[in-house]
Amino acid sequence: ECLLWNQRVLEERSEDRFCFVPAHVVRRTDVSMAERDVCAHALDPAHGNADELALEQLIEALRCLPGVGPKSAQRMALHLLERDRDGGRHLSTILAEAMERIGRCNRCRNLTEQELCRICANPQRDAALLCVVESPSDVLAIEHATGYQGHYFVLMGRLSPLDGIGPADLGLDELGQRLADAPPREMIVATNPTVEGEATAYYLQRMAQQQGIAISRIAHGVPLGGELEFTDQSTIAHAFSSRQAVES
Amino acid sequence: ECLLWNQRVLEERSEDRFCFVPAHVVRRTDVSMAERDVCAHALDPAHGNADELALEQLIEALRCLPGVGPKSAQRMALHLLERDRDGGRHLSTILAEAMERIGRCNRCRNLTEQELCRICANPQRDAALLCVVESPSDVLAIEHATGYQGHYFVLMGRLSPLDGIGPADLGLDELGQRLADAPPREMIVATNPTVEGEATAYYLQRMAQQQGIAISRIAHGVPLGGELEFTDQSTIAHAFSSRQAVES
Repeated sequence: ECLLWNQRVLEERSEDRFCFVPAHVVRRTDVSMAERDVCAHALDPAHGNADELALEQLIEALRCLPGVGPKSAQRMALHLLERDRDGGRHLSTILAEAMERIGRCNRCRNLTEQELCRICANPQRDAALLCVVESPSDVLAIEHATGYQGHYFVLMGRLSPLDGIGPADLGLDELGQRLADAPPREMIVATNPTVEGEATAYYLQRMAQQQGIAISRIAHGVPLGGELEFTDQSTIAHAFSSRQAVES
Repeated sequence: ECLLWNQRVLEERSEDRFCFVPAHVVRRTDVSMAERDVCAHALDPAHGNADELALEQLIEALRCLPGVGPKSAQRMALHLLERDRDGGRHLSTILAEAMERIGRCNRCRNLTEQELCRICANPQRDAALLCVVESPSDVLAIEHATGYQGHYFVLMGRLSPLDGIGPADLGLDELGQRLADAPPREMIVATNPTVEGEATAYYLQRMAQQQGIAISRIAHGVPLGGELEFTDQSTIAHAFSSRQAVES
């Protein structure tokens, strides 16, 4: 009797899952299928086990984090509830504080709790050097990897007309004002080497040229520790055409 | 002049990173190295950019989530701050609520906001069937995949003497009491087929046998849609020795 429902369920399942979909499709998509299943399951109020409103809401809320699907969200929610409630409470408090307290630097648009971020407020840094990047994580990466002691300007995005992101959204008016008021000795463009990043770099280049400011771009080429064999064609082509003379 | 510090930095870096560590080690470990670097960087109060206390705290707090290292935590924090502050605020509220409101079912130890979870409180379910699982996610998985209409008992772990987890931690006293008070017709053991899961299953088996209760275990073998060629040896060996007669 106990085996009976199992048998019935297996038959139902096999109709649902295997008969209508070719096997190779099932195999490729079963991870995402499973995710969707879990999601539908967790959110379906008609389902027998879906009484846990707070749990459902938590799973759904965790999905606002990047890279977190329904399956990871469920794992995170259950982990916090089963093993780390203090961590969960702490995260909740810190998160609320951070969302309220962290704003943008008035000068470079980077994330900060103050009016000016520490880089802009630091008198020891060279205000005559200005590095333009797309996001705060780029600032962190450059600060960490280099000994750069100049200032930054954080676009918080890149020019993307298709998504409706124009110069005004990236604070390029402010940047233009800044270039006019206190022209830096050199403007270093460190946007990402993507199509939009390149377009943004070109726009910045024209802005700097209008003001007669020296402009440079970070080098693109084969990364250190990488191997030519495993580097993509366009990177190799770029590295080849941008080769530099070796001084003897 | 501007190139000078770059050169200096590259020299310092190459000492730090490449000279003291063989190249193949760098390649294998550079992901985790990068993670540690980011972490040390984000948390180092002496570092030029590490003024953002709230941001640092948020990155650190996000690491209580399973599978979230310093790099992912940074990405999550920046994503919320740059693009989804409402989501972050919502997550904070929901998280605090969930941590306070969700407790354990008095009967089956599953997570619930009520005294009894919906499964235990549902009179339509068959109280004569009892399925023992390790965690709430196992309940979700079984509820979703099968038409099982019995009750559950959630151990919230598995026997693991090395980690100091004994029968009392898994509520096996309560389970024994329940087996004695209202012996089920069948107890289905659905612990994971790991070493600790097997030990737990053996313990449960002895408990049931002492009370003269029929016990069954879910089948272990080659998964549906899997291929023998890519199935591990012990699973194949188990599937082979557990082969079942086909009725003609």
